Amino acid sequence: MFIFRINMTDLTVTKESVPQEYAAFGGRALTSTIVEKEVPATCNPLGPNNKLVIAPGLLSGTSAPSSGRLSVGSKSPLTGGIKESNAGGTASQKLAKLGIKALIIEGQPLEDKSYIIKVDKEGAIITEDTALVGLGNYEIMKSLSKDFGNHVGVLSIGPAGEAKMATANISVKDPDGNIRSAGRGGLGAVMGSKKVKAILIDDTDAPGVAIANPEAFKEAARILAKGLTEHPVTGQGLPTYGTNVLVNIINEAGALPTRNFRSGRFNKANQISGEAMRDLIIDRKGKPTHGCHNGCVIRCSQVYNDRDGNYLTSGFEYETIWGFGANCCIDKLDDIAKIDWLCDDIGIDTIEIAVTSAIAMEAGVLEFGDGEKLIEIIRDDIGKVTPLGRILGNGADFTGKAFGITRVPTVKGQGMPAYDPRAVKGVGLTYATSTQGADHTAGYSVTANILKVGGYVSPLGKEGNVELSRNLQIATAAVDSTGLCLFIAFCILDNQDAFQAVIDLLNAQYGLSLTADDVTALGKTVLKTERAFNKEAGFTNKHDRLPEFFLEEECPPHNVTWDFTDEEVDEVFNFENEDVKVETPC
Amino acid sequence: MFIFRINMTDLTVTKESVPQEYAAFGGRALTSTIVEKEVPATCNPLGPNNKLVIAPGLLSGTSAPSSGRLSVGSKSPLTGGIKESNAGGTASQKLAKLGIKALIIEGQPLEDKSYIIKVDKEGAIITEDTALVGLGNYEIMKSLSKDFGNHVGVLSIGPAGEAKMATANISVKDPDGNIRSAGRGGLGAVMGSKKVKAILIDDTDAPGVAIANPEAFKEAARILAKGLTEHPVTGQGLPTYGTNVLVNIINEAGALPTRNFRSGRFNKANQISGEAMRDLIIDRKGKPTHGCHNGCVIRCSQVYNDRDGNYLTSGFEYETIWGFGANCCIDKLDDIAKIDWLCDDIGIDTIEIAVTSAIAMEAGVLEFGDGEKLIEIIRDDIGKVTPLGRILGNGADFTGKAFGITRVPTVKGQGMPAYDPRAVKGVGLTYATSTQGADHTAGYSVTANILKVGGYVSPLGKEGNVELSRNLQIATAAVDSTGLCLFIAFCILDNQDAFQAVIDLLNAQYGLSLTADDVTALGKTVLKTERAFNKEAGFTNKHDRLPEFFLEEECPPHNVTWDFTDEEVDEVFNFENEDVKVETPC
Repeated sequence: MFIFRINMTDLTVTKESVPQEYAAFGGRALTSTIVEKEVPATCNPLGPNNKLVIAPGLLSGTSAPSSGRLSVGSKSPLTGGIKESNAGGTASQKLAKLGIKALIIEGQPLEDKSYIIKVDKEGAIITEDTALVGLGNYEIMKSLSKDFGNHVGVLSIGPAGEAKMATANISVKDPDGNIRSAGRGGLGAVMGSKKVKAILIDDTDAPGVAIANPEAFKEAARILAKGLTEHPVTGQGLPTYGTNVLVNIINEAGALPTRNFRSGRFNKANQISGEAMRDLIIDRKGKPTHGCHNGCVIRCSQVYNDRDGNYLTSGFEYETIWGFGANCCIDKLDDIAKIDWLCDDIGIDTIEIAVTSAIAMEAGVLEFGDGEKLIEIIRDDIGKVTPLGRILGNGADFTGKAFGITRVPTVKGQGMPAYDPRAVKGVGLTYATSTQGADHTAGYSVTANILKVGGYVSPLGKEGNVELSRNLQIATAAVDSTGLCLFIAFCILDNQDAFQAVIDLLNAQYGLSLTADDVTALGKTVLKTERAFNKEAGFTNKHDRLPEFFLEEECPPHNVTWDFTDEEVDEVFNFENEDVKVETPC
Repeated sequence: MFIFRINMTDLTVTKESVPQEYAAFGGRALTSTIVEKEVPATCNPLGPNNKLVIAPGLLSGTSAPSSGRLSVGSKSPLTGGIKESNAGGTASQKLAKLGIKALIIEGQPLEDKSYIIKVDKEGAIITEDTALVGLGNYEIMKSLSKDFGNHVGVLSIGPAGEAKMATANISVKDPDGNIRSAGRGGLGAVMGSKKVKAILIDDTDAPGVAIANPEAFKEAARILAKGLTEHPVTGQGLPTYGTNVLVNIINEAGALPTRNFRSGRFNKANQISGEAMRDLIIDRKGKPTHGCHNGCVIRCSQVYNDRDGNYLTSGFEYETIWGFGANCCIDKLDDIAKIDWLCDDIGIDTIEIAVTSAIAMEAGVLEFGDGEKLIEIIRDDIGKVTPLGRILGNGADFTGKAFGITRVPTVKGQGMPAYDPRAVKGVGLTYATSTQGADHTAGYSVTANILKVGGYVSPLGKEGNVELSRNLQIATAAVDSTGLCLFIAFCILDNQDAFQAVIDLLNAQYGLSLTADDVTALGKTVLKTERAFNKEAGFTNKHDRLPEFFLEEECPPHNVTWDFTDEEVDEVFNFENEDVKVETPC
């Protein structure tokens, strides 16, 4: 395997062998290690000294189920800290099959020109491009599929990335030519700052991924697939309703942030629930279940059509529906679907824009619940990069500052996702302490707090939540390094055989004899690397805190506040000074 | 003396005796001590937990020359750290004469109403006000002078403060009813967040300031006044040309930041110089010299008229003229004067807005040098609070982020003043390390670097600059606590008798026997207090750094970069762990 180092200052590409210090890693472990080693932590994220690192996971490109996730790493323009943004789509598998361990995009063109990068079995080339400038992601995908074939993988940025907005994401083409997103942290702005509009990945005649022990690999893949299919979350809940299965569950739990985190219950939740959505999708001849990448057995994605049966959006996630729904009080699923499409097309993170939209409502830019006006603002202001669009397009913290609004649910500059931290305290600890800013996926304590997956820890009490968040953050950092979808966690937390199968997959592919301890060591190493970067960037434990209003204001219906002391919060990363060692797989 | 604690949540005022821990302090020492003790460092600066502290200096209200400076302290919405913003005008003397050691404005009204606070010998009262809402500062001063008399001191905020913009300043009425500003750090936004539109100070029948030893005080005042009058800077340069005497000097030194810090020379410097300005002022029957407060012997202010001899602006400072002049390449002094008037009226810091305007030019919002367009934008966008106005009104860092511009000369979020740090390295060290963000006044090394006041230290080399910046930061923190204008430093750095006179003034007023060591101890204590607050707020030495481009790009004509190592920069605050003790004056 090798690395392509793509220098956008002098427009050169270097093919490099993988240095020893990167060899053990894939996915998030690799992107975070490269960022920590190569990016000056105090650099401007949009300047030439930042780098954008794109890496498939350790198992990507193989037949392991749900292993096609991609990691994109950089210093984040949104948080100012390290960022790994994780996406589905076809890119990860294609990169892995080409033998590419990582693309490292560095430097910055001196001239104001736009470029595309093409990667195939012959190498990687940078080409000036004028045709795609200003285009939205849907048109880019269409245009590139037409020019280069449907089989070509694409990463691209929309107008928001070109405008270097801190909510800009990176779109990844899915198997149908639609869009998945490396959503969080504004990495589309980093790509935009490097003037890279799109990256094409053509794996025609690619060598594929070598497997040391194919039989053992096949058996482990079978066990994991069986586990995923049999688990109620990954085998039933997610394939049936998508991630939006959560609206009713989290609303019932009193933790669905509503009206900019004023309550944990939305009285119109049933109108935007996964159950309502599934009925609509079936009625309108959409696809209620769909894989974001080939070989996914969970298939939590879907295609959502409009009243007339025409494609409206896909990859329509719970977080998006919560964010524009409950948190902005919009109760029409079609409005939210239009917003989701617009966000994908413009290339902006739906979670950050949803949290931002509620701040704009708080500021009186529009009314809570006004879906039509929000569609207009996203399309005509963010999409067309007006001054208002530049405010909103830079996220919740930025919008709060612009309008002098203090009720801003963010940590480290990143907007909070769909679980009120007061009512799901394990997630609150993850929001507070994650290296990524407020991020539910970084340590998804909803598992034990609400879903009773991997045991039960009360979401409203303190007991056990520090350990829960810590253990999940460690496990997540490891899973994010494999290329496996994080949703396998639902299964492996409950099913020891499936958990062992993940380790067996790594051992079979790389000819290793890793144990569960090695996986924990990998997770800890990733987190320590990320914490080291953030410390160098100027972060301290003072940044591991929730905004004041969560401490002062009770959240109905449980009427709970955020009551962890600073000392308790700081215990989440109690392993920071442990000495951990990671075995080299390849 | 006593403190008025003004609670804007429940609209109550409490008159408190001065607690022992605040007794030794005045001015900046007092505001910083109160902020450090009473404000949670991680609070939102615009939320109810921040406080706005207004304090006259230790010598304010006396006949000591140039002793009428006011300190306003808070957590800054611009930097996120502690802030002391210092201004002339009549408020400081009036507060001191009323026996008021500090006004502490805390809390936040729940209702969206506007208030004024009236302070006189009977007490302090909060009154709801609707008449002033939305008014600019000039109209406020006029209206309040009409309603309450010319003799009443006023602090007020313009539309920018009401809109809680991070560049919003606090206007202080000068002896003519015009405007001086507590400019930096966005404290007008804090006042706006507390819904206080104006504070009136009526010192009619005030008890005045008690002097323990009047004869000694008078003699010390005489010696200081003599020193000030005889020193070439405070006795000639400043009274003749105002602070704008510096345009030619700093341009000649190759340190006048031009075109957003691209060069240290502006080829139109002569058109905006102090010399050109003086000729114009005299020609147009303005006032070439004018005191910002009664009893000032330096009188560096002036009244600048338009072509027709009508008032155009006053308090027209070098930093303003540099900022909109050289740094924005505007070469018409009348345009800059109009901008100065607008900034005062809207209530925004001219330095921050000047640095911001150059970023907007960088981003293509308008062309470098286009004064007319800039007047329009400030008046119609910032002044009328459009989305573009909200971007620019939140400062240079914010505007850089909004437009994806990385060439942003700020430290800790505050725009750099009128000396290129590469060409005046002592000032560069102050910018980097000051508790206040990039601030020239915090440790004005231009003295020894350029003006050869208090010795000479080469501005282009490293030697002696760390000590210079450190010593000046310590001395400044002490001077800022006395209510004396910082410009006395020019004199006391060269004149031992005048330096001793300052100490004698404090001793004579408070019946003490302070020495020079006590003054140093005071300065160190203030800085340590401020550093402690900033550390609690999440600042580390990683924030004591200049932006990357100063390290990478040579500044003509000297073609120098910023070449201090991080370790050298960190040496400025080498006294942080010393044990220092401050004697109690009152």
